[in-house]
Amino acid sequence: MIHFHGYFRSSSAYRCRIAFNLKGIEYDFTSVHLRKDGGQQKTPEFRALNPQALVPALEEGDFRLTQSLAIIEWLDETKPGAKLMPEDPDLRALVRAFSQVIACDVHPLQNLRVLDYLKAEFNADQDALDAWCGRWIADGLNACEALLAGRPQSTFCFGETPSLADICLVPQVFSAARFKVDISGLSNVNRITEACNALPAFADAHPKTQPDSEA
Amino acid sequence: MIHFHGYFRSSSAYRCRIAFNLKGIEYDFTSVHLRKDGGQQKTPEFRALNPQALVPALEEGDFRLTQSLAIIEWLDETKPGAKLMPEDPDLRALVRAFSQVIACDVHPLQNLRVLDYLKAEFNADQDALDAWCGRWIADGLNACEALLAGRPQSTFCFGETPSLADICLVPQVFSAARFKVDISGLSNVNRITEACNALPAFADAHPKTQPDSEA
Repeated sequence: MIHFHGYFRSSSAYRCRIAFNLKGIEYDFTSVHLRKDGGQQKTPEFRALNPQALVPALEEGDFRLTQSLAIIEWLDETKPGAKLMPEDPDLRALVRAFSQVIACDVHPLQNLRVLDYLKAEFNADQDALDAWCGRWIADGLNACEALLAGRPQSTFCFGETPSLADICLVPQVFSAARFKVDISGLSNVNRITEACNALPAFADAHPKTQPDSEA
Repeated sequence: MIHFHGYFRSSSAYRCRIAFNLKGIEYDFTSVHLRKDGGQQKTPEFRALNPQALVPALEEGDFRLTQSLAIIEWLDETKPGAKLMPEDPDLRALVRAFSQVIACDVHPLQNLRVLDYLKAEFNADQDALDAWCGRWIADGLNACEALLAGRPQSTFCFGETPSLADICLVPQVFSAARFKVDISGLSNVNRITEACNALPAFADAHPKTQPDSEA
């Protein structure tokens, strides 16, 4: 049995939940509260599992894995269920690149530890934090929109079934709303997000429906 | 023939150069100067190639690909030469996770556009920028050291041949020096970086030996 350590509001835990659901994988869950007790991710126990002191982390027997994209590709390569990565190597590369636009160049900039640093060292108030997050989210989602607009239209980002790209897109669109970023003009992003959220695998992974949710 | 768009000092272009060299792949090169002409990556021509306006970008015929990790896995899956990803799916996942520690949680925070934002919006001076970069580089490389220390010792990060993990590590160690981060205590990181830099594939990819180098 897979044991998954996450947090309802973490984008990267949200990604993993969607992947578990799409593949129909059952797992045990431990909530790692990023705000309680000075951050439960900073305890020696959790650092032994992930020296980065970030969620998510996964255990299966003695095997331990971190980083949501690595976790999701590993699930796809080793577990049965719906395929989340295309068979074609060119298309697979495009799915990875799209996912990395979000996972490398958007999401890490809005991470809790980064916002805490901006508050502590640069006296950033909430408006300054919203502007900061808004800049990187808008840059990234505009790029996603351009990548999608340059392809033949499909129900999901890269075809007629959801892939890692959709798994990264939906939590990022959720956090765009959280940071009050106007993405109403991104027609492909919004159309695809709606198609994803109509699927139980995505809806059931939403932060507000998790056991540790406070929303 | 592959056409590669990069910049000598970019960590992600540096990663791709190492991968090309390890696999023995020839390519045409266009330098995209990130500082000249207000940033050559921001031109309409380059944005048509990469809507993120970031290097690197790759073209082969009509196929276009961005994001260094996606590029390197694509090279590994579609081109002959040394294998950069392990065959074993668990080990492959660990290589990806290690690489993503750097490519997601360290490098994007020290990107030029981010430093420019800190200067413009938070009046950050060079000391503040060094402290900012130093925090994320130290966090990330300390995590890398812990991940390496938890494994049986090997010449490279995950075995006796270089993988994507080493390809990500070496440019990050280079930029640690650039931002004056003391990593002298990270014995595995330093030992492996030295082993990598002794190989022509790594040495020939160094920023200071590139055609567009200004170092």
